[in-house]
Amino acid sequence: MPIARARAIDSPTGSFHPAEITRREPGPTEIVFENKFAGICHSDIHTVRQEWGPIKYPIVPGHELAGIVTQVGSAVDKYKVGDRVGVGCYIDSCGHCELCAGGQEQFCEEAIYTYNDTGRDGLPTVGGYSTLFTVEAGYALRIPDSIPLDAAAPLLCAGITTYAPLKKWGAAPGKRVAIVGMGGLGHMGVQISAAMGAETAVISQTRSKEADGRRFGATEYYALSEPGTLKKLRKSFDLIVSTVSAELDLDAMIGCLKVGGALVNVGLPEHASTVRLPNLVGGNRILAGSQLAGVAETQEMLDFCGEHGLAAQVEVISADEIDAAYDKVVSSQVRYRYVIDTSTI
Amino acid sequence: MPIARARAIDSPTGSFHPAEITRREPGPTEIVFENKFAGICHSDIHTVRQEWGPIKYPIVPGHELAGIVTQVGSAVDKYKVGDRVGVGCYIDSCGHCELCAGGQEQFCEEAIYTYNDTGRDGLPTVGGYSTLFTVEAGYALRIPDSIPLDAAAPLLCAGITTYAPLKKWGAAPGKRVAIVGMGGLGHMGVQISAAMGAETAVISQTRSKEADGRRFGATEYYALSEPGTLKKLRKSFDLIVSTVSAELDLDAMIGCLKVGGALVNVGLPEHASTVRLPNLVGGNRILAGSQLAGVAETQEMLDFCGEHGLAAQVEVISADEIDAAYDKVVSSQVRYRYVIDTSTI
Repeated sequence: MPIARARAIDSPTGSFHPAEITRREPGPTEIVFENKFAGICHSDIHTVRQEWGPIKYPIVPGHELAGIVTQVGSAVDKYKVGDRVGVGCYIDSCGHCELCAGGQEQFCEEAIYTYNDTGRDGLPTVGGYSTLFTVEAGYALRIPDSIPLDAAAPLLCAGITTYAPLKKWGAAPGKRVAIVGMGGLGHMGVQISAAMGAETAVISQTRSKEADGRRFGATEYYALSEPGTLKKLRKSFDLIVSTVSAELDLDAMIGCLKVGGALVNVGLPEHASTVRLPNLVGGNRILAGSQLAGVAETQEMLDFCGEHGLAAQVEVISADEIDAAYDKVVSSQVRYRYVIDTSTI
Repeated sequence: MPIARARAIDSPTGSFHPAEITRREPGPTEIVFENKFAGICHSDIHTVRQEWGPIKYPIVPGHELAGIVTQVGSAVDKYKVGDRVGVGCYIDSCGHCELCAGGQEQFCEEAIYTYNDTGRDGLPTVGGYSTLFTVEAGYALRIPDSIPLDAAAPLLCAGITTYAPLKKWGAAPGKRVAIVGMGGLGHMGVQISAAMGAETAVISQTRSKEADGRRFGATEYYALSEPGTLKKLRKSFDLIVSTVSAELDLDAMIGCLKVGGALVNVGLPEHASTVRLPNLVGGNRILAGSQLAGVAETQEMLDFCGEHGLAAQVEVISADEIDAAYDKVVSSQVRYRYVIDTSTI
C-alpha cells in the first residue's frame, strides 16, 4: 500500500500536525499520483472549523490537488506515468444516472467528495494535504503543460467554480460582466471573464486590490465602501457573478442588472437572504446559483486556461504554515490563494 | 372626436360609475376599434385601491381589450375595418432603443401603459373599461378567428404573462412543469404548458379546482394545504411558474426543482421574500422573474392559442357588476376571469 505523509487536524480549534496515511493500491481503472501542491480553499476552513456542521476528526482537508502520475491501473488508457494531473472537489460518482450522463457528476446522488466523505471502500476520504493520492482515472483532470503545477492546483476548485457560471450565463464579447469579490474565486473569475471577451468589472469592498484587478483583465473597478456605488451601476450588467459569502444587498445588486440579466451566486452565505421578487419580475431578471461542474467541463476549463495563459496567482507555503494561512485567508490577506508545497509535509 | 362610454372610479374605496370619454381621432399610423370586452385583472384592483401606491382619480382601468376595428389611419396597412384586435398592458414605446429593437417593448423606458400613465399627448391614458379605443396600429394585436372575443381579452395579460416564461424556460415534451396558483394567470399557464407538450402539474392551495386543472391539461394536482406536499415533490420539476402574489416558502419551492431547474415568478408579492442562496447554489438552480413580453411575442402567443384551441375560461359580466366582481376576484371566487361586456357600459 502506498504510504503518504499528510497534515491532519483533530478538532475545530486544533492545529495541523504531521500524519502518516495509506493510500490504496490502484485498481484496474485507477491511478496513483504524487501530489505536488495542494491549494487552501476557504471551504477547507469552514469544514475544519465545523462552520458548516459537525465533521469527523482527524481530518485531512484539501480538494485542489496537482501532481505527477506514478502508477496506473491495468485498464487505464487515459494517463501514463509522468503525466501531470489534478483532482478537484469530488473523486467519484455513480457514472450512469441522468446527471452523470449529462456531465453534471458534481450533483450525482452518489458523488464522493475528496475529503470529509466516505469512499466506496467504506473508509473516510482523505484529502489533498498529502503527498500521494489514489483516484479513478476518469475523475482526474489533465493539467496543460503551460500551467505550472502550483498555479494549477487552485483551478480545480476556484477555477471551475467561476468558469462554469461565466460560460453558462454568457460572458462573451459585447457583454458587461461584474465579478463581486476578488479573493481566491474572484481573481480567477476576473481573468476568465476577460479571456472570454466580456467587458469585465470588479465590485469589491475597497480599492485595495484595484491594480491587481486591472492586471487580471478588469477594465472597471468599483468599491462598495464608497457611498452610492451600486446606485450608480443601476442596469449596467448582463451578468454578475458573486463570489462572496458575506451578506449582500441582493436587491441593490439585482438592480445593477440590465433587463434579462443574471446575478449568479457561487458563495455560500450562512444566513438567509432577502429579496424583493418584483425586482426580478420587472426586468425579467435572474438570481441563480452555481456549484462546480462535471468532469468534462472541468477539463474544458483547464484547457481554456492553458490556451489563454491563465492561472491562479498563488503564495506557496510550507506545511508548517497552514494554521497561519487559515487565519490570513479569513482576514483576506492572501494574494490570492495559498498553495502548500507538499514536499514540506 | 370619437365619444366612448366608460366606467370610472373616483377613490380607492369608491364604486364604478358611468362616464363619457373622448378618444382621439386616429393619426396616420393609428386605428380605432370598438372594444367589445374588457377583462378584469387582479392588478386593476391593486391599482385602483392604491395597493401599489398613489394614483390619480378618476381612473378607467382595463388592459385586456378585445374588439373590432372601426377606423384606420391613412398609413396603416396592418389592419382594416372589421379586423379583430386586442390591446394589452402597454400601448406605445420609443420604438428604437435596444429593448424595443430586441422585442422587449414592455421594458422600454418610454413604454406607455394602457391606463394610469401619461400618453404622448400629455393626457392620462384611459383604459379598457370603455367602448372605444384609439391606439398605434403597431401595438394592437390580431386575435385569431378561432378565439371568441370574450375569451380572447384575458390573453392580452394573463395569457402572455404565463406564455413568456413557459417558452423562455423551456416548457416542452419531456419536461415536468408546475404552475403554482390556478387563478386568472394560472389557469392560462396550465393550458399553455400542456399545449407546449410539458407534463404539467398544478400546485394550488386546496383541491377545490382540481377537476378544472385536469380539464385544462394538468396530469398532476397538489394542494399546499395537505401537510408535506412540497417535501414529497423535492427535485421534481424542471420549471415552476408561480403566479401567486401571496408569500410563498421560496426555499421549499426551490427544493422542488431538479438540478438546473428554474422557479419563475410572475406574481408581485408586496413584502420581501427570504431565500437561502445555498439552495440555489447546490443544484445550479434559478429564481427568476418574468413580466409580459414584447409585441411580436404577444402576437405569437395569440397565434399559439388559436392553433391549439386555447382561451381563457371567462364569466361575462355587465358593467354594473364590476364592484362585486372585484370583491370576488380578491376572494378567489372567479372561474377564472371576469370579462365586462362593454355593450352594458
